[in-house]
Amino acid sequence: MIDQGTCNLNWCAALLDGLIAGGVATLVLSPGSRSTPLILAAQRRPELTIEPILDERSAAFYALGLAAAARRPVALLATSGSAPAHWLPAVIEAAQSDHPLVLLSADRPPELHGWGANQTIDQGQLFVPFARECHDPGPATADPAALKMVRALGARVAAVARGPRPGPVHINLPLREPLVPETALPPLPRPRPTPPAPPPATWSGGAPDPHRATQVRTLLRGRGLICCGPDSARPGLAPRLWQLADHLGVPVLCDPLSGLRFGPGSAARIARYDSFLRNPQARAQLRPDWVVSLGRTPVSKTLLGWLAGTPTLRIDPAARWSDPNHDVAVLLDADPAACCDWLGEQLDPAPTHWLEHWQHAERRIEAIAAEHLAESPWCEPQLLTTLLAHIDPDAGLLCANSMPIRQLDTWIGARATPLRLFCNRGASGIDGQASTLAGINAAGVHCHGLLGDLSLLHDLSGLQLLQRLDRPCVVLNNGGGRIFDYLPQQGVEGFERLWRTPQSLDLAALARGHGLAHHAVEGAADFAATLARDDAAGIIEVRLDAERSRTVHQTFWSRLHEDTGLLK
Amino acid sequence: MIDQGTCNLNWCAALLDGLIAGGVATLVLSPGSRSTPLILAAQRRPELTIEPILDERSAAFYALGLAAAARRPVALLATSGSAPAHWLPAVIEAAQSDHPLVLLSADRPPELHGWGANQTIDQGQLFVPFARECHDPGPATADPAALKMVRALGARVAAVARGPRPGPVHINLPLREPLVPETALPPLPRPRPTPPAPPPATWSGGAPDPHRATQVRTLLRGRGLICCGPDSARPGLAPRLWQLADHLGVPVLCDPLSGLRFGPGSAARIARYDSFLRNPQARAQLRPDWVVSLGRTPVSKTLLGWLAGTPTLRIDPAARWSDPNHDVAVLLDADPAACCDWLGEQLDPAPTHWLEHWQHAERRIEAIAAEHLAESPWCEPQLLTTLLAHIDPDAGLLCANSMPIRQLDTWIGARATPLRLFCNRGASGIDGQASTLAGINAAGVHCHGLLGDLSLLHDLSGLQLLQRLDRPCVVLNNGGGRIFDYLPQQGVEGFERLWRTPQSLDLAALARGHGLAHHAVEGAADFAATLARDDAAGIIEVRLDAERSRTVHQTFWSRLHEDTGLLK
Repeated sequence: MIDQGTCNLNWCAALLDGLIAGGVATLVLSPGSRSTPLILAAQRRPELTIEPILDERSAAFYALGLAAAARRPVALLATSGSAPAHWLPAVIEAAQSDHPLVLLSADRPPELHGWGANQTIDQGQLFVPFARECHDPGPATADPAALKMVRALGARVAAVARGPRPGPVHINLPLREPLVPETALPPLPRPRPTPPAPPPATWSGGAPDPHRATQVRTLLRGRGLICCGPDSARPGLAPRLWQLADHLGVPVLCDPLSGLRFGPGSAARIARYDSFLRNPQARAQLRPDWVVSLGRTPVSKTLLGWLAGTPTLRIDPAARWSDPNHDVAVLLDADPAACCDWLGEQLDPAPTHWLEHWQHAERRIEAIAAEHLAESPWCEPQLLTTLLAHIDPDAGLLCANSMPIRQLDTWIGARATPLRLFCNRGASGIDGQASTLAGINAAGVHCHGLLGDLSLLHDLSGLQLLQRLDRPCVVLNNGGGRIFDYLPQQGVEGFERLWRTPQSLDLAALARGHGLAHHAVEGAADFAATLARDDAAGIIEVRLDAERSRTVHQTFWSRLHEDTGLLK
Repeated sequence: MIDQGTCNLNWCAALLDGLIAGGVATLVLSPGSRSTPLILAAQRRPELTIEPILDERSAAFYALGLAAAARRPVALLATSGSAPAHWLPAVIEAAQSDHPLVLLSADRPPELHGWGANQTIDQGQLFVPFARECHDPGPATADPAALKMVRALGARVAAVARGPRPGPVHINLPLREPLVPETALPPLPRPRPTPPAPPPATWSGGAPDPHRATQVRTLLRGRGLICCGPDSARPGLAPRLWQLADHLGVPVLCDPLSGLRFGPGSAARIARYDSFLRNPQARAQLRPDWVVSLGRTPVSKTLLGWLAGTPTLRIDPAARWSDPNHDVAVLLDADPAACCDWLGEQLDPAPTHWLEHWQHAERRIEAIAAEHLAESPWCEPQLLTTLLAHIDPDAGLLCANSMPIRQLDTWIGARATPLRLFCNRGASGIDGQASTLAGINAAGVHCHGLLGDLSLLHDLSGLQLLQRLDRPCVVLNNGGGRIFDYLPQQGVEGFERLWRTPQSLDLAALARGHGLAHHAVEGAADFAATLARDDAAGIIEVRLDAERSRTVHQTFWSRLHEDTGLLK
């Protein structure tokens, strides 16, 4: 008969066995007592990197960034009580943006629940309905069948987290005291043979069913376009997508987060649609008869509104219903690359000149934007251009929600140089940005950050993690939530205090408190020089005049609205 | 036909009507767009104080502190997406510690849900199973019957939040665009007569049913004690409780959070049990035949373990099953004060000398503690004594979980001077402490804070709110989670990095970043002088040698263990 502490340890070791076999390589933990057996077991697995982070909310966004960049499941561990509840915002983002997280919450045993014992809450339901699966294997036992189960459970949750549709999976782990073995920590049992790692996530099939052909040929008649939303790119897709577009002569609209806007492309690639679709004549003349939709919902609200009502074929191997306009007539849950080949066989090319209209509008916008920015004071568009030029082809940028990703969408066209662009666009929150950035870097992707002042201040715990980065996080300090300056709330009574909410924090002192360098930047030359410094890591605070910036944007849009040269 | 923006505004105005009638006086909001109609409506209600706080997690703990100190429901408002998910830790604490919160989450309308539209998550289930009720009244409409419902819903959720068992209540509010009325903001309709405010929460009855008498007389035979856990005090209870104890000659064990340890008492009041129950002879001789239990589970693990197996009568008007030892034989859901009178009629006094044994042990511990501390270096016990002596009778102290509340329980005996002591003991997390402290102060209770370094750093957003306080938050900086020094994990390999987790932050710079004064304190005289300063508000950082502190505690406990003078 082994003691309870040893029983707990063996139980957790078996669970980790399964998780590691399933591809988990990192355990991000926040300190606690009840979670001790899992920590003791994890320490004895050299395959596992252990990362302690105090604030569970920050730990979870860190794990999210790591999972997003490494494309493998990352495990989180917290102690009992409200601790795992702090994961919820990151779990929601992971569920919506399909990142693999394994959530391990230590808990008190069933006999203490519901009777007022300390730190007992209903942990089993914390992540319903956001986790893909929720498990509670019961308290640790030495029973061989149960140990076999818990090892299999580890492998299973890692597999479920990986996909076909990746996401968060929760295991709640009730553990009885004592939590540490009574005698000296025993050598762990020799690792038993673990099941082979499940194969990497694959799509559910090759090409679509043959019986789809008539349906698709009927739907996709006339002039069409391919719309690539966030997370469209898959290994092997790009060349076959470009081949299809060139063959059919249809434009491919590439969201900045599609994975297709930056890197080798084709002449059919279009990126400036958010601009030229603000022109009424272009909206009318370019209206398509059909859309093929890939990835998630595009960032551009202009595009989305304009597409409403267009018959749509959606290709998504994970069968996600990303269709906010409710226009999808056919959903193909098949391999997108195989679908491209198949569509090439099924469809007739578009009428001559269809693609040329698009290409003309794209070039025209490039020219107008270049001219407009040359005449305008320095603000976000020029800053974005400088920043992106500075980022190496194999490096990344985390762009925050609200204004930064929209401005990047507007101002940064397609280019042949690759860029790994990250954005928590699943739930589109302004939360957890600094922690996510640290997680992405921890996955080995050298990644800059681009955040607004409110985004940074919403994740103060994440500042501590930025110490680990070898490159800076750029903070656009324009005095609060400037997205509201562009919305109908602008100017209502109490606007400054209740919507824009500027914060009066001393970023330089805050950075120092977290052991970070702080660089204050005011203009173009200053920004470029600071980015280029060897010691640029830390916070680059760019103070921007938001009113001037709003004028730059609005005069640009007015100019587009009235432009008569967009149509060929 | 009114426009959608006006329809939204009228809808939210009706809801607020009900909430205000139900006793809500404060709306704590975090900025957002979807929540605009509710903000517009709230601005037009002068009865409502509006508090904008950027980070929803911090906003929720602020509301919790406000609700705890003001004993009235506080409303929270957040925009759609992951924003309200940040409330979860504070909602859990409110559910467990019975504080009234009204959670208002703005949402996108049903037609956008489940189809990949931006910021759409399943908000309706965010707080299951922690909210007492969850509602979704559907999108705003001008239908009079629906408007009548939403006004009634406001009054209802305020009433449910208030009790008999107070707690959090959730309303999810889907709102269609446009969110701002199309024309100039119309004058709001003249407020309709609101239903009268429901009466304050009352207990479910007066004295217990007569048929309980035999059962209770059988249960409570021989030598007993009354155990008052956190939140025992109710208006009018104390004098009748002391009268009962004096009449029966039984000790009343008062948890520091009971509301009964500080303030006028009786000779039957006992506070030093966590100390003398560490002595084996005292544990044996003082063992009772029965317990009457009030309030929630006591802080002292020593007391709780020692009580296990004792037949218990529990008095709780909200019928909470606070009974981690599973010893409750009878639960009376009746008014505790009426129960005291009734018990006085039913029971025979305890044997002579029973209470005297307890009183002797209490006095003996006081003497030993005083002697021990006089000989010991300055650390938490002396600091606590100085701090409590400094706090005015009508003022408060928020004491963090983990070590601070346990040390206060051990070292601070009963006293006739009142003190309002706060501690988030529902889920016993180390989270949200600074924000909770700010909320308590916002309720008009002048309240000091006493936090460990990890507690403070878990709630960095709360630092910003401390600017509003006219008194300091004392931070015991002893280099990480020192509670682990007292647990079996102490000393295992990797202890420092994975359990104790000291943080390397510059508190002085952090304080400056948040516009707070910072005072570093090293010893007794220094601490007393700093507390007494007119400009003491901000952070008082007390650097403590945790190893020295551990020695002070452990030699005290050894001394108690061996003491032979505890028994009369």
